[in-house]
Amino acid sequence: MSDLPETSVKTAVTPPTHNAPPAKFSHGVRKGNILQVAGQVGNLPAQEGRPPTPAGPDLASQVRQTLANVQSVLAAGGASWEDVVMARVYLTDVAHFAEFNALYDAYFAELTQPPAARTTVYVGLPPGLLVEIDALAVLG
Amino acid sequence: MSDLPETSVKTAVTPPTHNAPPAKFSHGVRKGNILQVAGQVGNLPAQEGRPPTPAGPDLASQVRQTLANVQSVLAAGGASWEDVVMARVYLTDVAHFAEFNALYDAYFAELTQPPAARTTVYVGLPPGLLVEIDALAVLG
Amino acid sequence: MSDLPETSVKTAVTPPTHNAPPAKFSHGVRKGNILQVAGQVGNLPAQEGRPPTPAGPDLASQVRQTLANVQSVLAAGGASWEDVVMARVYLTDVAHFAEFNALYDAYFAELTQPPAARTTVYVGLPPGLLVEIDALAVLG
Repeated sequence: MSDLPETSVKTAVTPPTHNAPPAKFSHGVRKGNILQVAGQVGNLPAQEGRPPTPAGPDLASQVRQTLANVQSVLAAGGASWEDVVMARVYLTDVAHFAEFNALYDAYFAELTQPPAARTTVYVGLPPGLLVEIDALAVLG
Repeated sequence: MSDLPETSVKTAVTPPTHNAPPAKFSHGVRKGNILQVAGQVGNLPAQEGRPPTPAGPDLASQVRQTLANVQSVLAAGGASWEDVVMARVYLTDVAHFAEFNALYDAYFAELTQPPAARTTVYVGLPPGLLVEIDALAVLG
Repeated sequence: MSDLPETSVKTAVTPPTHNAPPAKFSHGVRKGNILQVAGQVGNLPAQEGRPPTPAGPDLASQVRQTLANVQSVLAAGGASWEDVVMARVYLTDVAHFAEFNALYDAYFAELTQPPAARTTVYVGLPPGLLVEIDALAVLG
């Protein structure tokens, strides 16, 4: 921590793959050794002239894309999943828990650091979206 | 960070405008360079002898009051929205998303720092309440 | 903070009382002065050959066990409730709020530090579970 400036700078983190947020928030924010990733959903990388488009209607497509989208924000903020201490998972259906876990475990098969803590709850999301994930990383 | 004491003090943050919390929790907690604001709803400033009263039955009244209530806690903790890295937004109805975003953007029109990251999900709240927001600020 | 190593280590926190997580996540993660406790539910201490078993079907049993489970993770990470700045509470029924608060207040009757901030929302949880709680502690 000794190389942090006395007043740490707040930086917005915006991966080139992402659509502009639909409101005045940042996809990620870095301040000091904290990197907070905003709630990500399973939208495909942004494409000029195309509205936000989910990777697919199914859980597997959306979970893989959501995790990739969190990863893009982490990378744009100088971090990786190895630095994440907490992932918050929002699913829409309790029946998705087992499949979600299988997808999650497969995605993190290569992780070399201890996995993040996690909270999983079941909420409402906009129509067509099955999963949302945000993440807190501690760097340094 | 070099001016932090070796053992940082945990302080409860209680704005004078707020009713006492309905249970053993703090409206805000400051420890080291972290300021956590508890979930705020759209209740009007506390008034002797009046139970907690929402600013209005409608989304706009409650969103503006909720954001003001978060701001009061931030201010009482020596921070402002400029220091917030994450806002968690709980709405009760997906149909409120567009109007919520318009209100949110208007509220933050003057923000000079990058806006906070945000996660928005749809949950249940006590009857009459349409929105709840909490916030994590990193100071220093 | 002066005794933190320049690169802080990420450590998984696993209390001996806990079942293995059902997926690739940690019950708690410590990095630098941050300790994040994953979402805990009201399961009894793990017992060889027994699947995860809630302390009871009722709110009181589950709330007491959930708070004890958060405490176990805090303790295994070198912390206590005194260090917690934020508790996130997920209930399944708005009608449980008053009883939950009474249980929460009783549990924290002896707390000597200011209580944590808190957000309480109503979500879906797996069948039979009435409460989930996670916690963020700041140490040092």
